[in-house]
Amino acid sequence: MNTRIRKFKESMKNENLDGFIIKNPINIRYFTGLNLEGTFLINKTENILLTDGRYIEEAHQLITISDEIIVHDIAQYQEYDYINIFAECDKVGFEDNYITYSNYTKLIRTFRIKEAVEANLLIDKMREIKDDNEIKNIEIACNITDECFLYLQDFIKIGMTEKQIAFEIYKFFIEHKAEGIAFDTIVASGKNSSKPHAIPTDKKIEFGDIILIDFGAKYKGYCADMTRTIFVGKVTDIQKNIYKLVLDTQNRALNKMKSNADTKEISEYVKNEFSFNNFEFIHALGHGVGLDIHEKPFFSTRFNNKLRLNMVVTDEPGIYIPNEFGIRIEDTVLINNMEPRVLTKSNKNITIIKG
Amino acid sequence: MNTRIRKFKESMKNENLDGFIIKNPINIRYFTGLNLEGTFLINKTENILLTDGRYIEEAHQLITISDEIIVHDIAQYQEYDYINIFAECDKVGFEDNYITYSNYTKLIRTFRIKEAVEANLLIDKMREIKDDNEIKNIEIACNITDECFLYLQDFIKIGMTEKQIAFEIYKFFIEHKAEGIAFDTIVASGKNSSKPHAIPTDKKIEFGDIILIDFGAKYKGYCADMTRTIFVGKVTDIQKNIYKLVLDTQNRALNKMKSNADTKEISEYVKNEFSFNNFEFIHALGHGVGLDIHEKPFFSTRFNNKLRLNMVVTDEPGIYIPNEFGIRIEDTVLINNMEPRVLTKSNKNITIIKG
Repeated sequence: MNTRIRKFKESMKNENLDGFIIKNPINIRYFTGLNLEGTFLINKTENILLTDGRYIEEAHQLITISDEIIVHDIAQYQEYDYINIFAECDKVGFEDNYITYSNYTKLIRTFRIKEAVEANLLIDKMREIKDDNEIKNIEIACNITDECFLYLQDFIKIGMTEKQIAFEIYKFFIEHKAEGIAFDTIVASGKNSSKPHAIPTDKKIEFGDIILIDFGAKYKGYCADMTRTIFVGKVTDIQKNIYKLVLDTQNRALNKMKSNADTKEISEYVKNEFSFNNFEFIHALGHGVGLDIHEKPFFSTRFNNKLRLNMVVTDEPGIYIPNEFGIRIEDTVLINNMEPRVLTKSNKNITIIKG
Repeated sequence: MNTRIRKFKESMKNENLDGFIIKNPINIRYFTGLNLEGTFLINKTENILLTDGRYIEEAHQLITISDEIIVHDIAQYQEYDYINIFAECDKVGFEDNYITYSNYTKLIRTFRIKEAVEANLLIDKMREIKDDNEIKNIEIACNITDECFLYLQDFIKIGMTEKQIAFEIYKFFIEHKAEGIAFDTIVASGKNSSKPHAIPTDKKIEFGDIILIDFGAKYKGYCADMTRTIFVGKVTDIQKNIYKLVLDTQNRALNKMKSNADTKEISEYVKNEFSFNNFEFIHALGHGVGLDIHEKPFFSTRFNNKLRLNMVVTDEPGIYIPNEFGIRIEDTVLINNMEPRVLTKSNKNITIIKG
């Protein structure tokens, strides 16, 4: 039995939706387990996956009766079939956050949709809460990331480039059963660490550098997200103080992350803590993690969002001194009723590597 | 002087567009040279780039007066500023192929757009024709890819996994001045090569395997795209015959690719050639290559498209015997008035590696 689709059909019913069009490959993977491009169509009686020559063989191989999904090759589909799918549907939901404007107009024409309803939120809300299988996969992704961080502390040497380190991370992941990287790895050393979103460069690691590493493995489609900031050879008093402030704030924010807590309040706490110490907090505190590296819920000081049991989110405060250095510490955590379960377990004490 | 923006403003004029909203980071990179997320706004007198804390420092550093672009931090932007940008614009173009439906409704509200016009095509049409600088970058990306193929013929050994080879390609690119891979590398060996869109697996290379490698480097944002199919230890007569058919067809299609030629006619030529030999051609013959790995023009047997001077496209016929093997040969080519300039120069003769 496909419990995810069944559960989704219940929430469709609650919203008076008779049908749904899913195009986002990540959502298709969520409901079907298949990693492909296509169109997944849900009506009251059927779940139809349309895909093309590139994927059809694999889809037929992997889908079983218990998946409750019918697979069709789009090349064999006729106008009549298209019109037929939603013929008895008044309201059909679509992914307004994913479907492009031109795709939207095309889908409405192709399937003769009577009323298309912006309904991305319905899938997002379901994906926010992770089931056991999802938690297991994220946990494995986090474990691989932890192992990699341990490895890096030995591997990183003065004279290596940021790109070499980023590349080694990719290699480590691939060699340790990961599907790949969950997002573009950040390895930012020295001044580069003052840019929160730096891209690895040919800059060589030097004695006295800070190295900010934001990275995560992907396992069976599920992402890990962790940042550690380490020091090469030495750490200055200013750096030490800022590191402590970031770490203490990160830990205290972590303790606030429990079911029913508000992401806005936790974000404000961090912002105020930093501003009290005359630092500005220039990015968001965290975000949900799952099949997407950034998904709901998002942390913001502008919007309220309740944390709920079995959400998986990041906790990633950072302080950046322009043109000097930046320090960010980030964990991926599973929300519980009391304190969260931290899925990334790497050491957060000040780490000085010999390099 | 920013020639691309000036040229684009002329085509806006021809379409009676007074303004344009650009959100696609690839298009932002095309017009500004900056690799970031944000919103690029064009009206009759100004070109305004709105971006956020993650990128603002870098944008200010890289943009010079000759870029004719004003950079603003979105955090400092007020409702008044938003409304002001398109206040004197009747028709404002937007990227209907990129903007999601929900973003579309949001942009219209935020900027109080009087009439939003689906106008992705205007940018696509311009990006189809490459300028000298773009051709130079694609050429470099292709050179790195060629060098990598030479290296792989020595590197690949029996017992290695497809993933290891894919990883070595990434490493080679990074170590040879590439930004990274232009798309997810395909390394498909043995039976796996019969799936045109295979993902590298843990399958080990065996004696007698076919290996289909579809890969390309990215250089300064620009992509290369090449496929070579090689043999490990031996090649059967059937494989040899199919290889020859694919290669001859690929070469003959290549010779047809010149300014004013029609992509539909060339696609049909390949389809008929294969079908005459009792093989089905199950994917498209080619596509444009540039900042995107797949961009206009697309080759299809259903739509007419004229090739034009300085387009860069792929030529990639393939034959796939389900559950047995597949053979594809692909080059990236620059369209000229007479025969095209082939930018990927790797050997296409039957290659048997010792492994």
